[in-house]
Amino acid sequence: MEGEPTLRLRIFDLNCWAIRYLSKRRQERVRLIGDTLRQEGFDLVLLQEVWSEQDYSDLKVKLARCYPFSHYFRSGVIGSGLCVFSKFPILDTLLYQYSLNGYPYMLQHGDWFCGKSVGLGRCHRHGSHSPFAFPLSLQLHAEYCRDKDAYLPHRLVQAWELSQFIRHTSKAADVVLLGGDLNMHPEDVGIRLLRGWTGLRDAFAEATHFEGCKKGCTLVPGNCFTDKSELLPFPLGIRIDYILYKAISSFTVKCEELKTTTGPAPGMNIPFSDHEAVMATLHIQRQGQPACATLGTADLALADVVTEARTEVGVGLRAAQQQRYSSGRMAVLALLLLLLQAVAALATLAGLGAEQPFPKLSFCLLAFLALGVLILATGLHLFHTMEVKMLHGTEDQMWMALRALQERP
Amino acid sequence: MEGEPTLRLRIFDLNCWAIRYLSKRRQERVRLIGDTLRQEGFDLVLLQEVWSEQDYSDLKVKLARCYPFSHYFRSGVIGSGLCVFSKFPILDTLLYQYSLNGYPYMLQHGDWFCGKSVGLGRCHRHGSHSPFAFPLSLQLHAEYCRDKDAYLPHRLVQAWELSQFIRHTSKAADVVLLGGDLNMHPEDVGIRLLRGWTGLRDAFAEATHFEGCKKGCTLVPGNCFTDKSELLPFPLGIRIDYILYKAISSFTVKCEELKTTTGPAPGMNIPFSDHEAVMATLHIQRQGQPACATLGTADLALADVVTEARTEVGVGLRAAQQQRYSSGRMAVLALLLLLLQAVAALATLAGLGAEQPFPKLSFCLLAFLALGVLILATGLHLFHTMEVKMLHGTEDQMWMALRALQERP
Repeated sequence: MEGEPTLRLRIFDLNCWAIRYLSKRRQERVRLIGDTLRQEGFDLVLLQEVWSEQDYSDLKVKLARCYPFSHYFRSGVIGSGLCVFSKFPILDTLLYQYSLNGYPYMLQHGDWFCGKSVGLGRCHRHGSHSPFAFPLSLQLHAEYCRDKDAYLPHRLVQAWELSQFIRHTSKAADVVLLGGDLNMHPEDVGIRLLRGWTGLRDAFAEATHFEGCKKGCTLVPGNCFTDKSELLPFPLGIRIDYILYKAISSFTVKCEELKTTTGPAPGMNIPFSDHEAVMATLHIQRQGQPACATLGTADLALADVVTEARTEVGVGLRAAQQQRYSSGRMAVLALLLLLLQAVAALATLAGLGAEQPFPKLSFCLLAFLALGVLILATGLHLFHTMEVKMLHGTEDQMWMALRALQERP
Repeated sequence: MEGEPTLRLRIFDLNCWAIRYLSKRRQERVRLIGDTLRQEGFDLVLLQEVWSEQDYSDLKVKLARCYPFSHYFRSGVIGSGLCVFSKFPILDTLLYQYSLNGYPYMLQHGDWFCGKSVGLGRCHRHGSHSPFAFPLSLQLHAEYCRDKDAYLPHRLVQAWELSQFIRHTSKAADVVLLGGDLNMHPEDVGIRLLRGWTGLRDAFAEATHFEGCKKGCTLVPGNCFTDKSELLPFPLGIRIDYILYKAISSFTVKCEELKTTTGPAPGMNIPFSDHEAVMATLHIQRQGQPACATLGTADLALADVVTEARTEVGVGLRAAQQQRYSSGRMAVLALLLLLLQAVAALATLAGLGAEQPFPKLSFCLLAFLALGVLILATGLHLFHTMEVKMLHGTEDQMWMALRALQERP
């Protein structure tokens, strides 16, 4: 890129809400998204919640000419739902699955089955020799109840893993981009942790020019697909979809413009999704001097954020330990019941208590119940053991980070 | 490190085989390992299969003075078993869990429960300003039968993910080290893929001076803990534990010496583990010119290796698709049986066939069986769906890599 003029990069990010059989007017919306992307000609398109590979394939065919390069990230039972379309060749991809992502038995929330992950792609600009960007498309665990948010520790573990992943992989690029539905409000501890620990900047806060929903909200009451009752405490809506960026080495990035859709798609009567799309125009320029590290400027504030996050993870850890204990106790009780039954059956076989008829049916039903409880409780115990390990591991890592922050001169 | 003399780095790597209740003479061996490490004073110690956190804590206490910095990587139900002891501060760690790691129902192999993963640590040398190394300690899926190796596709997915992980994270370091039990012979496709795709060099092949088991074997018949029948086709033993390294940016690394233990630990009557320890002495030096990329020198050979690996992954994919289909069919059959039983029960309740006594016991037993099969088959179906997704994803990524190799000028 030496001696080249400024690169203007137009990015489109959208949580597509394209769940087969469940999302309203899915096919119509996916067609609409495809048409708009083809007309607008962005440089980079980051989509989330494209759960059906068929939808991805349809989009790929439709967008083949404008966006010759694309990738779908496969993971979990259902898939990650993440895909990227690009004008620039995608050199390489890597998928990082978060170690915690909700509970398999919370079927109504379903996050566990999606294998939520962060997909990393390395792009390469024509005519340039080094890869210039890492577009990341991702989604964190959803928040189902803000007041009593049982998933907060899991989301914080994810935010921490994401931050660590970005720190460790970003050195190989000139510019890092992160786009996706983070399921966190701008002031939440997870976002502060992510931004503080990686040095990523928020396109909404930095944009010279902004156009769209008030305060950059991406889940707004004006969208006909949103759940109005969820948004009651937030009359303007909430901002949970982000485009974040950061320049590495000798580059500078500026956000010239940020736009969001405002309910119905331009010129149409339905929105693209229940989320609003976020569109950013970035200016990337090489500068003579390597940019100084953005980290370290506010170590004290960062230490506070890490401490806050660590406290929340600690709360989650104690809850998980409690659940591990309860499920273990339940499994032991079920096992005892089964053993008791076995003894009773053996006693009957040996001819003891033969004067009374043996209650075969209720015996079978009870054994069936005890076995079911045993299997379920053992499964839960294993799951919560894993959860405890991961929460404990994250607590350790955060402690290590705090120590490093404090020891920094 | 500017203007500093050569850095001599002594590394110790060992698969400790420290499984509580299962490994022979575990506590004695862990004590022995601790004593030796304290006496020898290595710079960096990479241990695998330290499954009990208590063993890690004991080692940590014992080694606190010689190796003030350490980290235990937590993951899976049992744990990752990986830990690192270091003379240099560990700045940062990251754990990457492989997306595939055997089958949960293969209880006798147990790989699935271990959450096999690669742990990444960033070390920092006193007096130097930039982190100088990435010690990696890891373990891949074990090989249980070489002739009919059902886990080969999983191990290849792991080797590929490991390679990608190293490529993406290595730019932030000056030197990359990789130590661990790779469960692959030196000529296996997985090792060739890993070395080719990352440019890592094998300490055994590069060492100026070697001392230890013939051909650098680390699983040898002379070790009293090894399974002699497994080693029958290999009279000298096999080499599956490695120390690999690579210099990034303006550094050079040379392997001055490589040693392995040869059965019993020095001066003792028992070995450290069923594996032999690998000890390397590396010389790290800053050079004026940035080292040129090691990749690209043998693109053609590399393309062949990637193609070979992709073929094997494809074989695994087809097997997984077959298993997904079988388990799905089984689930549907169990569901049909349950429905049939429900119809029969309803018919009896409605008074049909009242002339015959209703066989309550066998009815209950059959329903119990059908439900059990349904739950099991559904679980298997979900698992194999996930497996198919990950194998498919890896196939895609390998295809992308091949295209990039072919398009390279």
